[in-house]
Amino acid sequence: MPGPLAGVKVVEIAQEIQGPYAGLFLADMGADVLKIEMRDIGDLSRYMLVRLIAGPEAKNADFSHYFLAMNRGKRSLTLDLKKPEAQEILFRLLDTADVLLSNYRPGVLDRLGFGYEALSQRNPRLIYALGSSWGPNGPWVTRPSRDTLAQAAGGIMAKNGMPDDRPLPCGTLVADHSGALTLMAGILAALYAREKTGKGQKVDACIYGTVIALQPMEINFTSVSGGIETRRAGRGHQFLQGVWGAFRTKDGWICLAGVDDKRWPHFCRVMGIEHVLADPECSDNVIRNFRGVKIERVLDEVFPTKTTDEWMTLLNSVDILATPVQEYRDILNSEQALINGYITEMEHPQIGKVRVVGNPITLSDTPLTTTTPPPELGQHSEEILLEAGFSWEDIAAFREKAVI
Amino acid sequence: MPGPLAGVKVVEIAQEIQGPYAGLFLADMGADVLKIEMRDIGDLSRYMLVRLIAGPEAKNADFSHYFLAMNRGKRSLTLDLKKPEAQEILFRLLDTADVLLSNYRPGVLDRLGFGYEALSQRNPRLIYALGSSWGPNGPWVTRPSRDTLAQAAGGIMAKNGMPDDRPLPCGTLVADHSGALTLMAGILAALYAREKTGKGQKVDACIYGTVIALQPMEINFTSVSGGIETRRAGRGHQFLQGVWGAFRTKDGWICLAGVDDKRWPHFCRVMGIEHVLADPECSDNVIRNFRGVKIERVLDEVFPTKTTDEWMTLLNSVDILATPVQEYRDILNSEQALINGYITEMEHPQIGKVRVVGNPITLSDTPLTTTTPPPELGQHSEEILLEAGFSWEDIAAFREKAVI
Repeated sequence: MPGPLAGVKVVEIAQEIQGPYAGLFLADMGADVLKIEMRDIGDLSRYMLVRLIAGPEAKNADFSHYFLAMNRGKRSLTLDLKKPEAQEILFRLLDTADVLLSNYRPGVLDRLGFGYEALSQRNPRLIYALGSSWGPNGPWVTRPSRDTLAQAAGGIMAKNGMPDDRPLPCGTLVADHSGALTLMAGILAALYAREKTGKGQKVDACIYGTVIALQPMEINFTSVSGGIETRRAGRGHQFLQGVWGAFRTKDGWICLAGVDDKRWPHFCRVMGIEHVLADPECSDNVIRNFRGVKIERVLDEVFPTKTTDEWMTLLNSVDILATPVQEYRDILNSEQALINGYITEMEHPQIGKVRVVGNPITLSDTPLTTTTPPPELGQHSEEILLEAGFSWEDIAAFREKAVI
Repeated sequence: MPGPLAGVKVVEIAQEIQGPYAGLFLADMGADVLKIEMRDIGDLSRYMLVRLIAGPEAKNADFSHYFLAMNRGKRSLTLDLKKPEAQEILFRLLDTADVLLSNYRPGVLDRLGFGYEALSQRNPRLIYALGSSWGPNGPWVTRPSRDTLAQAAGGIMAKNGMPDDRPLPCGTLVADHSGALTLMAGILAALYAREKTGKGQKVDACIYGTVIALQPMEINFTSVSGGIETRRAGRGHQFLQGVWGAFRTKDGWICLAGVDDKRWPHFCRVMGIEHVLADPECSDNVIRNFRGVKIERVLDEVFPTKTTDEWMTLLNSVDILATPVQEYRDILNSEQALINGYITEMEHPQIGKVRVVGNPITLSDTPLTTTTPPPELGQHSEEILLEAGFSWEDIAAFREKAVI
């Protein structure tokens, strides 16, 4: 069965994460995503190789895990957009496209002749979607950014880390990736609206705005309370301390996520801490979950006495919200993740069978596809140009002039 | 102008974050979101009051910042779903609805008679969307969860925190909120598909899967490299150390996000660290950005000598990727956030004018609306029932029998 976006043509002129990862979701959903890449160079993410992190002796040292993660299921066409022939090609592709997807800085596509006004006059049904770092308007509009800066400006960093230590970014690129999710959603909303209005429109989804939108409950607390700034979160959450977060076991880490009054006696029993069962600093539900300094100390003493498996059996027996802290290797082998396609297996022409991150969305009747490898640079240049009505002679001339 | 989902009717039977926050995005987009709430009680998020965190003396101590953050722009209908009349009401609403949105645990709605099969037979156009903690299939399908557990099982926690210290959740509820984004996107994809197929379908979006999907580049590294597990991120990112992350200034914190070779001499000049300009442990681009232990120490010494403003002026003068680390108060007053609607102002009947987190998506022709307050419990029960064809007599009888 085809995916929900079967028949939708996306022209992606994008780099690194926000634009390409939005494009990947659209490709997973069945859209035909044409990735326009700089001639000879391509997406910069092609150059983030395993060797940069793990050294030249690592397995697949010269392979980019980064490009793999962002570009499966797309087709690649190379263009030198400074050449007039390349601009003509791009215009022709966009004349029949449903979506232009980019995360170039505001103004860059305009200067190349591909501003929204010009394109929507040629193709009024075109959805012109830009992922931005700081938003379409305002004093920071052309300010460069990166995931870490968005986390710092967007509030995650101020709340992440131990209260007495420095602010930390959360250690994974949650800003760029979640910015891709809102960009993808903005495009889907515009596609749906076009079914009603017959017209495309301009879409912006912003990483700074998305980071803010990942914390509405927390930021609204500061607003509603008249400006109270919570402490950095530490082990639980900025509001939560006590029976929360990671505790070291004999052989790993277990994470707890709160213990309510009903489960408290059972929890104390299986943990062997009946001596605090009636201690008001531990037994009070609000103190234990919001300001549980003492129970945290007690648990830090007890958890190292058994293994993670031993504790999980005990905690599960009384229905406590707990999980082992999983490393990436655990996730790559997680039965739950594999069954649902959150981790999926791909046959890659260069590195063979490989497990990769899949897609968290499951649709019953128009399922997503996540197993097509990303393209080689320019792999589909010829077929895309032929489909667009260019001839083999045209293609030869384009090659001669280093257009493609 | 109406939003992109004008005319779409959503019945939301959901609690806390993933379901309601997906519903909020749909409401922002112009959908009519009918929030079904337990009679007398309502969404549990109504009880997360400012006082629990800030004490009874705080401003708006008895107000829920949490419910406010999740439910603007919706209408509320109370129902006691254990009563047959309530089930009849819900069936009637769903017969003309476009979307059923829930994050109840798998099986709960089925047991109430509202499984997918039953509903899609009555209304084949219905999109049946469930937010799940662990996914629609597999051994963990009915396992309870919370944001912190999803971060622990999904890999964020293992990579967040200082390498020599314990794993930390990232301090804000990024799992639940990003799970709402993918749920919203799954619904939008199904709405678009229905325009082509004429049929609704079942949608699942999973928080565990979404947390994994926030780290595709990072998790794929472990896979492609044959199982290399990166260290906990510390101050930068699990791959990045050196000119990354927060540095303490005289009066706050500045975050850096890498310094490339071109800017390196200018960076050294404005920082007053020309003595390391040619030091191979600092001047080598890869070492400085990926394993920059020495430059980190040097910068820790220098940054405290000036204020954040003084440094930002110098860093901006040579185009260095840097930003002050913003607290929530800064964000609530951010010109950039306000201009773009990432922070927006709402007139709330109970607490008056209040700034709240807005929406990161901007659509030019079918704009989003983010200023309608959330409903009181059951505020729209009568109007929703009248619209559904019930009479005032019916409503009186429902009240008498404690159905609504």
